[in-house]
Amino acid sequence: MNFFAIRSRVESRVLMIIDGLIRLTAMAPLVDVHTHVYLPRYASWLRSRSIAPRIMVNEAGEERLLILEKETSAGRPVGPNYWDRNAKLSFMDEYGIDISIVSFANPWLDFLSPADAGSLARDLNADLEEYCTTGPSLASSPPLKRLYGLGLLPLVPGIPIPTILEAVTQVAQAPHLKGVIMGTKGIGKGIDDDALDPVWEAIEKTGLIVFLHPHYGVDSSAWGEKENGHVLSLALGFPFETTTAITRFILSAAFDRFPFLKILLAHSGGTLPQLSSRLASCIDHDPIVASRLKHDARFYLGKLWFDAVAYGPEELGFVSEVISRAERYETGASNPKSLAARIEDHPFFPPLSPNEKWKSVVENLDAIDSVAGWDQNERDGVRGHNALTFFNIQ
Amino acid sequence: MNFFAIRSRVESRVLMIIDGLIRLTAMAPLVDVHTHVYLPRYASWLRSRSIAPRIMVNEAGEERLLILEKETSAGRPVGPNYWDRNAKLSFMDEYGIDISIVSFANPWLDFLSPADAGSLARDLNADLEEYCTTGPSLASSPPLKRLYGLGLLPLVPGIPIPTILEAVTQVAQAPHLKGVIMGTKGIGKGIDDDALDPVWEAIEKTGLIVFLHPHYGVDSSAWGEKENGHVLSLALGFPFETTTAITRFILSAAFDRFPFLKILLAHSGGTLPQLSSRLASCIDHDPIVASRLKHDARFYLGKLWFDAVAYGPEELGFVSEVISRAERYETGASNPKSLAARIEDHPFFPPLSPNEKWKSVVENLDAIDSVAGWDQNERDGVRGHNALTFFNIQ
Repeated sequence: MNFFAIRSRVESRVLMIIDGLIRLTAMAPLVDVHTHVYLPRYASWLRSRSIAPRIMVNEAGEERLLILEKETSAGRPVGPNYWDRNAKLSFMDEYGIDISIVSFANPWLDFLSPADAGSLARDLNADLEEYCTTGPSLASSPPLKRLYGLGLLPLVPGIPIPTILEAVTQVAQAPHLKGVIMGTKGIGKGIDDDALDPVWEAIEKTGLIVFLHPHYGVDSSAWGEKENGHVLSLALGFPFETTTAITRFILSAAFDRFPFLKILLAHSGGTLPQLSSRLASCIDHDPIVASRLKHDARFYLGKLWFDAVAYGPEELGFVSEVISRAERYETGASNPKSLAARIEDHPFFPPLSPNEKWKSVVENLDAIDSVAGWDQNERDGVRGHNALTFFNIQ
Repeated sequence: MNFFAIRSRVESRVLMIIDGLIRLTAMAPLVDVHTHVYLPRYASWLRSRSIAPRIMVNEAGEERLLILEKETSAGRPVGPNYWDRNAKLSFMDEYGIDISIVSFANPWLDFLSPADAGSLARDLNADLEEYCTTGPSLASSPPLKRLYGLGLLPLVPGIPIPTILEAVTQVAQAPHLKGVIMGTKGIGKGIDDDALDPVWEAIEKTGLIVFLHPHYGVDSSAWGEKENGHVLSLALGFPFETTTAITRFILSAAFDRFPFLKILLAHSGGTLPQLSSRLASCIDHDPIVASRLKHDARFYLGKLWFDAVAYGPEELGFVSEVISRAERYETGASNPKSLAARIEDHPFFPPLSPNEKWKSVVENLDAIDSVAGWDQNERDGVRGHNALTFFNIQ
C-alpha cells in the first residue's frame, strides 16, 4: 500500500483555472495514485500456484505472498486490503483519502503464457472496472467515484501485438479505468523495444496513463553476502530498475516519436532525477545516442510524471525542481543554458580536438555558482575551502 | 579528468574561523579533488598486458585505454595528462585550479595477484609522493604545494591483512599523500566485509581520507540490446555501484564502529542522497538491520563527503540539503522528526499489529507539507489536484 499524489510541471498550474477544476480546488481532495490490488480472480490464481509468484499459508494459518522464488523471507503479509473493496475504503477513510487510483500489484501477468496472459488481462480489466463502477461516489462531489483503476496489458514474450492492442482498446473503453500499470520487461526485451511502437502509438492516441512500476530489481549479486533482508533490493534495486527502464525508453527517442505519452513513474522516478544531468552529459559524448535524440535528456523529465513516494521533503522538493527546469533544456529554447548543455563535455573524455576547452570544468563551476541559497562563503567552500580543510592542507 | 570540490556539513563553517584558514579564505582557492593519474610505472604495466585493463595503440598510432575486456568501443583516449605532471599543471593553469588532489584511476590494482598488488602499491605510493613533493608550490601561498595525492592499498583477494596495513602506514607517513582511493570490491567481498575492520581501524587512526570510486558498474544485462554505447554504464552503472557499496557499508554499522572515518564519495554520492529516506524506511521494516544500527540511515550521510561532480545546480543543492539535514536523524537528537522516522512504516508492509496506523501515510503527507518553497496551491496540487487533472477525473 503505497501513497500517493503527483506533480506535473506546467499542467497543474494551467489547469487550475479551468472551470471544471474550480470545484475541486475548493474541496482540496486527497488522491492516492500508488495503491495496489490483487483482485479475487488474481489472488485465486496465485493461491493455485506451487512456485513464485504465489500465495501460501504459513504455519500460523496466515496467507503470505512470495513474489520471488529465492526470497529469503517467508513472504509478506497479504490480506483483505488487497482484494476486499470495503477494506480499501476503510483504509481511505482512516487517512482522509478521497479518491484512490488502484492498480494491480506486481508481478502482474509477467509469469504467464501468452494465452493465459491475454485472457486474464481481459477478465481482470473487466473485474477492475466493476470494482470501481459499483463502488461508492465521492459524497462531496457525487459525479466522481472514490475508486478509479489502472488496468493490465498482456505484456509477455510471444504475445501477438494485436492482442495487446485489444487490451488497450478495452481499457480505453472502460469508463473508470484511467490507464495501465506495467513492469519494465515489455514483451521480453524491455520497454525500449521497437516492436512496442504500435502499443505506444495506441496508448498515446487514447490518452491513457502508463504507470511504470518495478518488480525485478537488479542482479542480486550486487548485494553481497551480508544478511540485510530485503533492505537492498527494496531500497536500491527497485529504484535502480525503474531508472534503467525509463532511461532506456528516453534513449530510444520514444518521447520524440510519441510526445503526448503520459508516463507516471513509481517511487518518484527512482534515481532518474539525481542522475539526469549526468545522463545528459554522457549522451553528449556519444554521437550515436546524441544524434538520435531531439532534446537534452533533462527535457524529457518534463514529459514524465512522478508519484510522491519519495519519503522526505528534500527528495520531493528536488524532484519538483528537476521537473521545473525541464523546459530550459528543450532544443531551441531561448535560454542559452540548453545549448551550452548540448555541447558540454563528459569529464572523463578529453575534448575531441586539442584546441577545445574541457567544457565540463566550466560547467561544473557554473553549477556551483548557480545553487539557489548558497552565499559566496558556501560557494568558496565547495570551490576549495572545504577540500583544504578535509584534506588537512594548510 | 573529473572535476572537483567538496562540501561538508558542519566542518566547513566551523573551520572557517580557525586561524590557519583565514589566509586561505582571503585567497578563495580552487581545489580539484577528483582528478586521476596513471603514473608512468602504472601506464607501463597497462601497456604490457594483452587483456583488459590495458593500453593499446590503435591504427592511427594513438594510445587507447581499454578498461573492460567486453567494451564495445575501441577504448578511450589516454594521453600525457594522465602521466605527465607538466600536462596536469597546464590543465590546472588553464582552468584556474590552484591545487589538485590527484588519485590513481580505476581499475587500480584490482586485477593483480596479491604479490604484484603489494609491491606495486608500495612503488606507486612512492611515485605519487615524489610526483607531489617535487612539484611546484602554490605561488600565492608557498608552504602549500599545487599537487597532493591519494595513494593505493593492495586490495585484492588473498592478500594478507598486514600487507594492507603496511600500505596504510606508508601512505600516512608520506607528507603529500592525504588518503587513499579505492574501488568497491574490498578484498573480494565488498567494503562491508568484516575482515576489513583492522584496515578501517588503521585508516581511522591515521586520519587518512578514503575516496570511494566505482569501476564495475552493475550487471550489464540490465542495459538491454539497443546500442547505447557507454551511456548506460557510465550514467547509471557507475552511480549505482557507488550507491550500493556505501549503502552496504552503512548497513554493516561500520560508521558506528569507526565514527571518525572520512569517506569521500565519487560523483556526489551516486544516488544515495535521493534514496536515503527510502533506505531509512526500508531499514525500519527490517528488525535485524534496524537493531544493528545506532542511527537512522540519513544520519550517516552527515558522516560522508561528496565531490561536486553532480553536473547541475539542482543536483548539487540537493546533495547539500541531505547533508545539512543529517543531524536531525541522530538517535537522541532533540528534533522529534528523527524519532518519528525510526518508527515509520514502509508502505508496502502493513503495521505489525492491527491497531497501528500506517505511519508511512502520515509521513508522506508530512513530507509534502514540508517542501520548502511550495505554497498551499502547490501542496494541494501534489496532494490531489494534479492527479485529478492527470487522470482526467472531473
